[in-house]
Amino acid sequence: MKPSLYTCLSPALLNLYDVNSSIVVIIDVLRATSTIATALHNGAKEIIPVDSVPDCIRIGKEISAITAGERDGQVAEGLQYGNSPFEYPTHFIKNKTLVLTTTNGTKLLHMAYSKGAKEIITGSFPNITAVCTYLLQKNFSVILACAAWKDKVNIEDTLFAGAVVNQIKDNFTIACDSSQMAESLYLTAQPDLYAFMKERNATHYHRLTKYHLEKDIRYCLTNDTAPALPVFIDGKLVNGIT
Amino acid sequence: MKPSLYTCLSPALLNLYDVNSSIVVIIDVLRATSTIATALHNGAKEIIPVDSVPDCIRIGKEISAITAGERDGQVAEGLQYGNSPFEYPTHFIKNKTLVLTTTNGTKLLHMAYSKGAKEIITGSFPNITAVCTYLLQKNFSVILACAAWKDKVNIEDTLFAGAVVNQIKDNFTIACDSSQMAESLYLTAQPDLYAFMKERNATHYHRLTKYHLEKDIRYCLTNDTAPALPVFIDGKLVNGIT
Repeated sequence: MKPSLYTCLSPALLNLYDVNSSIVVIIDVLRATSTIATALHNGAKEIIPVDSVPDCIRIGKEISAITAGERDGQVAEGLQYGNSPFEYPTHFIKNKTLVLTTTNGTKLLHMAYSKGAKEIITGSFPNITAVCTYLLQKNFSVILACAAWKDKVNIEDTLFAGAVVNQIKDNFTIACDSSQMAESLYLTAQPDLYAFMKERNATHYHRLTKYHLEKDIRYCLTNDTAPALPVFIDGKLVNGIT
Repeated sequence: MKPSLYTCLSPALLNLYDVNSSIVVIIDVLRATSTIATALHNGAKEIIPVDSVPDCIRIGKEISAITAGERDGQVAEGLQYGNSPFEYPTHFIKNKTLVLTTTNGTKLLHMAYSKGAKEIITGSFPNITAVCTYLLQKNFSVILACAAWKDKVNIEDTLFAGAVVNQIKDNFTIACDSSQMAESLYLTAQPDLYAFMKERNATHYHRLTKYHLEKDIRYCLTNDTAPALPVFIDGKLVNGIT
């Protein structure tokens, strides 16, 4: 009997799935989980995801860590850094601790944790093969949990879920229309994910291009540039590949 | 300025949309809204959608109407008829009142009503052109509301939303990833919706084929066989096309 695979397209739907008997993959392609993979791949010691800006500031002070995060696509007031993977090159982030808060991704991670997820990892195109390899090794039920945008389903997180389904489906039982839709969408978009986002007028594509972040979007849609495996342990994301 | 168009993929997400300033199109392709269109097109006087089986039985007795409905794809205990469009030919349903309860569609309709929807109509492939023509005439904001399956997003309702987006998009402002995804999925599936449902292993396709209802599925995926326009007025669905 193969383990089950589900895709949850919005945090508002997470309660429909058996979180506490699954590995939950948190997906926030633009840009939280892409940045998490990148910072860990570049040698960050650990990343502490927090829900609120005040918590981010407080914890950052307590442990003398870097504070980072965004609200509505821009650096949140009172924090030092933003949510762009390009802000975390090796020479800056190596051996450092990052306290991170984002609009959607970090919130979903805590939601999955409070619902008793068996295990939590984060996924993005920059670390897609690391994620798929891990899920195939574990051979355990999986929920691909899209962070979406303020609970509204978005294209980019769905595309990533679809890409994962496409890579690992033979090893899982998939009785889940969302997974099927995600894979079909991914197969349509796959020749050029960036062009698909643009052509499909994706809301977050607009939000970020307004801030001239095309470079971030292209990076966040590229496979395996940051092959880390962010695993959530004791309140911190650490790299499972060392 | 064109009016807005949104697609809501699950009843659990309806609170994210401005229901009270929109025409809400209730979509429950397999089979509630296909059956509603069919019964009205075949001359039913009106259809009273109700939430529960006991309410259905009670109201049916009070007004001497036909009671119908399903739970989990089968005729609910205590009701006379089921949720198949083939149960409502003209010689049976003409001038009669139907009291109907279904797993997802009738619940979503009442949810949209209680949230103050400006107007409520129901949509399905058998009446797709009637729905699109009406929405184009009204030139008002629209929410395509998918009934889904117990709040889990499903393929067939998303496909119908995508088909509507495809027909009317030039007249609306669409800042909605769900609408874009739905249209893309529809364009992929469009050469043969039935084959797509089968190939994609749609959960409701399985549920209904288990009861040998392939004929229902094929009918419910066919355009314009029942060109009625079910409009919800004073607690009843009546045919807006007379």
